[in-house]
Amino acid sequence: MNKIFAFDNVCINGFASVVGKTEKAGPLSYCFDMCEEDEYFGKDTWEEAESEMVHRCINILLNKTGRAPDSLNLICGGDLLNQCVASSFGVKEWGVPYLGLYGACSTFGEAMLVGGGMVSGGFAKNALGFASSHFCSAEKQYRFPLEYGGQRTPTAQNTVTGCGAVLLEKGQGKIMLKDGLVGRIVDAGITDVNNMGAAMAKAAADTLRRYFALSGKSPSDFDIIATGDLGREGYELCCELLGDAYEKIKDRYTDCGMMIFDMEGQDVHSGGSGCGCSASVTAGYFLPRLKKGELKRVLLVPTGALMNPTTVFQGQSIAGIAHAICFERQG
Amino acid sequence: MNKIFAFDNVCINGFASVVGKTEKAGPLSYCFDMCEEDEYFGKDTWEEAESEMVHRCINILLNKTGRAPDSLNLICGGDLLNQCVASSFGVKEWGVPYLGLYGACSTFGEAMLVGGGMVSGGFAKNALGFASSHFCSAEKQYRFPLEYGGQRTPTAQNTVTGCGAVLLEKGQGKIMLKDGLVGRIVDAGITDVNNMGAAMAKAAADTLRRYFALSGKSPSDFDIIATGDLGREGYELCCELLGDAYEKIKDRYTDCGMMIFDMEGQDVHSGGSGCGCSASVTAGYFLPRLKKGELKRVLLVPTGALMNPTTVFQGQSIAGIAHAICFERQG
Repeated sequence: MNKIFAFDNVCINGFASVVGKTEKAGPLSYCFDMCEEDEYFGKDTWEEAESEMVHRCINILLNKTGRAPDSLNLICGGDLLNQCVASSFGVKEWGVPYLGLYGACSTFGEAMLVGGGMVSGGFAKNALGFASSHFCSAEKQYRFPLEYGGQRTPTAQNTVTGCGAVLLEKGQGKIMLKDGLVGRIVDAGITDVNNMGAAMAKAAADTLRRYFALSGKSPSDFDIIATGDLGREGYELCCELLGDAYEKIKDRYTDCGMMIFDMEGQDVHSGGSGCGCSASVTAGYFLPRLKKGELKRVLLVPTGALMNPTTVFQGQSIAGIAHAICFERQG
Repeated sequence: MNKIFAFDNVCINGFASVVGKTEKAGPLSYCFDMCEEDEYFGKDTWEEAESEMVHRCINILLNKTGRAPDSLNLICGGDLLNQCVASSFGVKEWGVPYLGLYGACSTFGEAMLVGGGMVSGGFAKNALGFASSHFCSAEKQYRFPLEYGGQRTPTAQNTVTGCGAVLLEKGQGKIMLKDGLVGRIVDAGITDVNNMGAAMAKAAADTLRRYFALSGKSPSDFDIIATGDLGREGYELCCELLGDAYEKIKDRYTDCGMMIFDMEGQDVHSGGSGCGCSASVTAGYFLPRLKKGELKRVLLVPTGALMNPTTVFQGQSIAGIAHAICFERQG
């Protein structure tokens, strides 16, 4: 039942990222293609704002790569809104074949696995994978109306307003989508909706262990190993859960949710979360550095918490899932 | 941008279906593996009921095929509940690598395309694809509390309580997953949430036209061509939208939403809808008949409406998507 997805000649021929104003105030602001100060993105509602962010991000990718929308064979992606509407409304204008994905905050990993699989298997010459999240639409849907000004616990995370999009294509290129591993659902029995990091940490540790066991690679083969959005709380738990394996990984292991914000200077509690967290950090930071040759190999482990407010109110635990993706610089 | 997915040696080695009491009262009751009279499926909430239905359906498939859960390489599927919780809670016990999908009521088609692609491309030896919906959990989430007893318009559809699961495997078998086509999002400008058939009909017609144009097959190559859940209203619209092509298709074209209920004798308005509609009709009716040799080739076109209650309240239109899947009896 455990199998590494070894992609056959799938390269990354484009990437783009769009984030919001809190991310602009963070340490990675310099690396995103667009930082939008207006949290409405010029629209009337936060839901429309998120769709507009998705739309702009894919448009930027198309412009950067000089492509027309109808040159795309497949778009696959998703978001956190009910029925994944940010994604479907964001891409519908183009009429490109579309596969909607839902893996909570691990969705960007799914987009790489599904898009990469389809390109590798010859079903599409190219596939655009993306994921998005928006602080305001997420707070409204999952927590409290923003106007209410509810206090947050120290373990709570700050949903990233961000979208990352990646163009996968058959052939050789500077950056290859090398391989990956589909995560399995791991339920650590967490019921605290303000501690998503804890809910996802066990799944992240499970995927990291399985990836190294099955791929034959060791942590030292990677310049960076990054989980998606465990935040500080989940990161520390994941380190503990890795046990002996932690020693081998510790000097290169980080978390996108701790990278995107200034954990001391910004009021983001346990750090960033949301599908857009690992997607924007990958498209804005990892892939450009791989392209320049500053990094040789990155292991990304996007993490997701499987719940909705109703299941939480009903006392159900929050299970986690984490996928693994290996990006490699050629030559 | 248009490409038929031609699967390489992907066969269907198992299927199972579970439905509820309204479906038991319909004309296909004899063909499902389980008809549950209790709409709570023995649980305390409708959300848990739907997860239990998913769990039972996959368990039945495992029992019918004599497999252990850990023999599964991949599970992919989804449902209509916010954050697709019916699916993730339904499968989490088994710890099988999981890809969550969201294509509204077209999700079963996505599961066949993604699962089939992964098996065809050599990423998994087998993949279990499924989709589910539950009348009560859907009404609660999308429309009114059931206790309210709201009246329904004639164009409204009745969400099917049902789950269908299919085991895809590399190799030759009596039934092959032959090919398929990923749908594109088509927005017909419909804003009436009680007329999902109209919102999806244009996407269904688009996919049918594209499938025949790209595959080189003609409608006469199929014994049955079935859309997923357009219902009577959407079915009639789709026939109109097909124009000249309608003549070639009319004597074999039907809709799962019209098949699963007695359209005259049951109070189901425009017919069945929901992810579970095409999934349960396929796993309960089409696949057994293909296996027996009573059908040679079936074209299934699962249809989905891309919206959520918030986007509808905000006045956004409801776009549609439809995927195509060709099932073929060997020999």
